[in-house]
Amino acid sequence: MTTAEQVLGRCSELDTISASDTWLERTHLTAEHRAANDVVGSWMEAAGLSVRQDAAGNLLGRREGTEPGMPALLLGSHLDTVPDAGSFDGMLGVVMAIAVAERLRHAVLPFALEVIGFSDEEGARFGKALLGSQAVAGTWDEDWWDLADRDGTTLHQAFLDFGLDPRAIGDAARRPEELVGYLEAHIEQGPFLEAADASLGFVTTIAAARRFRLSVTGEARHAGGTPYSRRRDALVGASEIVVAVERIAKGAGTLATVGRIQAQPGAVNVIPGRADLSLDLRAATDDERDRTWETIELEAERICADRGLRLDVALTHVAPAAPCAPWLQDAVIEGIRSTGDTDPMGLWSPAGHDAMAIAAITDIGMLFVRCHDGISHHPDEGVREVDVARGLDAFEQAVLAIARDLP
Amino acid sequence: MTTAEQVLGRCSELDTISASDTWLERTHLTAEHRAANDVVGSWMEAAGLSVRQDAAGNLLGRREGTEPGMPALLLGSHLDTVPDAGSFDGMLGVVMAIAVAERLRHAVLPFALEVIGFSDEEGARFGKALLGSQAVAGTWDEDWWDLADRDGTTLHQAFLDFGLDPRAIGDAARRPEELVGYLEAHIEQGPFLEAADASLGFVTTIAAARRFRLSVTGEARHAGGTPYSRRRDALVGASEIVVAVERIAKGAGTLATVGRIQAQPGAVNVIPGRADLSLDLRAATDDERDRTWETIELEAERICADRGLRLDVALTHVAPAAPCAPWLQDAVIEGIRSTGDTDPMGLWSPAGHDAMAIAAITDIGMLFVRCHDGISHHPDEGVREVDVARGLDAFEQAVLAIARDLP
Repeated sequence: MTTAEQVLGRCSELDTISASDTWLERTHLTAEHRAANDVVGSWMEAAGLSVRQDAAGNLLGRREGTEPGMPALLLGSHLDTVPDAGSFDGMLGVVMAIAVAERLRHAVLPFALEVIGFSDEEGARFGKALLGSQAVAGTWDEDWWDLADRDGTTLHQAFLDFGLDPRAIGDAARRPEELVGYLEAHIEQGPFLEAADASLGFVTTIAAARRFRLSVTGEARHAGGTPYSRRRDALVGASEIVVAVERIAKGAGTLATVGRIQAQPGAVNVIPGRADLSLDLRAATDDERDRTWETIELEAERICADRGLRLDVALTHVAPAAPCAPWLQDAVIEGIRSTGDTDPMGLWSPAGHDAMAIAAITDIGMLFVRCHDGISHHPDEGVREVDVARGLDAFEQAVLAIARDLP
Repeated sequence: MTTAEQVLGRCSELDTISASDTWLERTHLTAEHRAANDVVGSWMEAAGLSVRQDAAGNLLGRREGTEPGMPALLLGSHLDTVPDAGSFDGMLGVVMAIAVAERLRHAVLPFALEVIGFSDEEGARFGKALLGSQAVAGTWDEDWWDLADRDGTTLHQAFLDFGLDPRAIGDAARRPEELVGYLEAHIEQGPFLEAADASLGFVTTIAAARRFRLSVTGEARHAGGTPYSRRRDALVGASEIVVAVERIAKGAGTLATVGRIQAQPGAVNVIPGRADLSLDLRAATDDERDRTWETIELEAERICADRGLRLDVALTHVAPAAPCAPWLQDAVIEGIRSTGDTDPMGLWSPAGHDAMAIAAITDIGMLFVRCHDGISHHPDEGVREVDVARGLDAFEQAVLAIARDLP
């Protein structure tokens, strides 16, 4: 039986497959992607799975159920990373899924079991996240072929270089009737399980998100010669907006972050005539997200009107909340209970996951594993072996609960 | 007699000497610098002045007083511009000084009259302002030779390329005993004369200034996974500081501007771990300037402490206030009165001027000319012909008042 120690060992092994000697970076359709698929494929084979790579570079391992060709319960996560990544975001879920498949090698299941290692969740190379899972969900957008990486290589060219046929991308898409559901284990990437002294949690929903670019326009003037009565300082207005964004989201129980800001012309002695902000907004439901945005927009408009500034807003990204199916939440809860936690903690995930994309074609469920200090996308990402052990037990029991209850 | 119309015509002529076809840009030690010195030199000669270029590229025209070699009353301003400049900042003062010299061509003066067109006031090419007037003031810093422009050309190399000998820079320096004083006419670069319906004003002092770089350090974390209780968002703290800077300076009657801001790592979905700000602070006196800074620093420290952020402060520039000498203020006031304004308006100049540097070696006085809407460093810079006409009369009368009262 694959143990938590082995799972952590495999995560460490994947650490060595990196574009950098000094940090972990493994992005879409690179030599590291291929190397990771090779080694993870060998673990899948060792677990008794039939391995293939799909038309989007995702790695799949399958064992049939009681009859060949039955719909599959899909277990997985992603194998790509951000630059300077930690060892567990994505990889832990794939390696745990393989371990669960190995543990259930001889179980009689009324569905096929498939493990998937998605090729791209982070979007670090082409600036577009979830490329692997969107291909599986059949929500591919032909415009994406023109996305280019830092070196100018398009996604289309990268597919060809990787030995994939862009024209065959549709082959990666799965039909709803081929699937029973999707279960993903993932580190929490937040501090709530640690704060509650819990190893595991079940996910209720994956955040609804919207991203905006806000532009505040005033008038660039000489910092010396312009008294306050004549200033229309775009940066002071933008700064009031940044402060208001935090106050409003905090009050609404949602999360809003301004990660980028730029003032123009950006000279020490010139009053900024323009300031551009990014806004990343996440909430448990679409409705909470949209109400938070409406409050922010009203307040930003008031701030700008008071200062004689103009506000322009561009929506750059929108994602509906992806609720976990109640029956899969129940299976995960039963799994967590089997580890001795009588009152499993439910969490909404402000971070996005492959499950968001897969929700388009099948029901989803997620198991969160406690991580150190909520840190993620950073080499300090950490999990405890005991939590991984409990996570394996819970994950296995969740699959068995699904098998038991499936109509 | 040189008229206001001719003065404005000469300013238009200088507009054509630009590094760009579409905007005005004339920077230090360029082909445009040489061309401007050539044409302005010809106007100086036409006004009866002996013309020379000094060791710093400044252009000088001199006529002797009642005896050769007497100390000189220096009149002038600068001939360089910022990129996308207006037509009057600097140039108007030089062209008016030449016109005054021409008007006084046959006057009997107990001093020599010198007109100077400073080579660099804006600092647009090498990022260091007042290079021309600092050379004249003898306050040259040998470190400046290593300053480089955007193309990597050092100031040292630029001197050589222009045909100047860097080793001779000391020759540009004037001794206090060579000078009677310095008078500069300049557009106000502010809205106060226009608001008071006055053509002209006298300057009481040139602003005390300090510039800082403020760095706010928090912790970069995932925008999704990090709840507000765990955030140390450097940008929200920096934004509170930007808002506080405005409130404090407004209350103190000083001017403070944040022109630059940068958040790191600067990703849409990452909480900023660091934010850097520039701060430009100006006040009528050193004391007001310093009290404003102390209040800002205390408030910034409080904001950072409340948010678990660290504040680092670097002073990047300091200039003491340069008060205009009372006797030269009186001469300028007498000049303005001669134009029919019985109650001339006194102003402090928040913007820096060559006079600041020259204050190190002689008394200074300044005459401000009303400009359109306070606009400067912009093609919309504008002056009225009637104001220039009054300015020429006032400037001439001020010189005569000095001649009359000189002990």
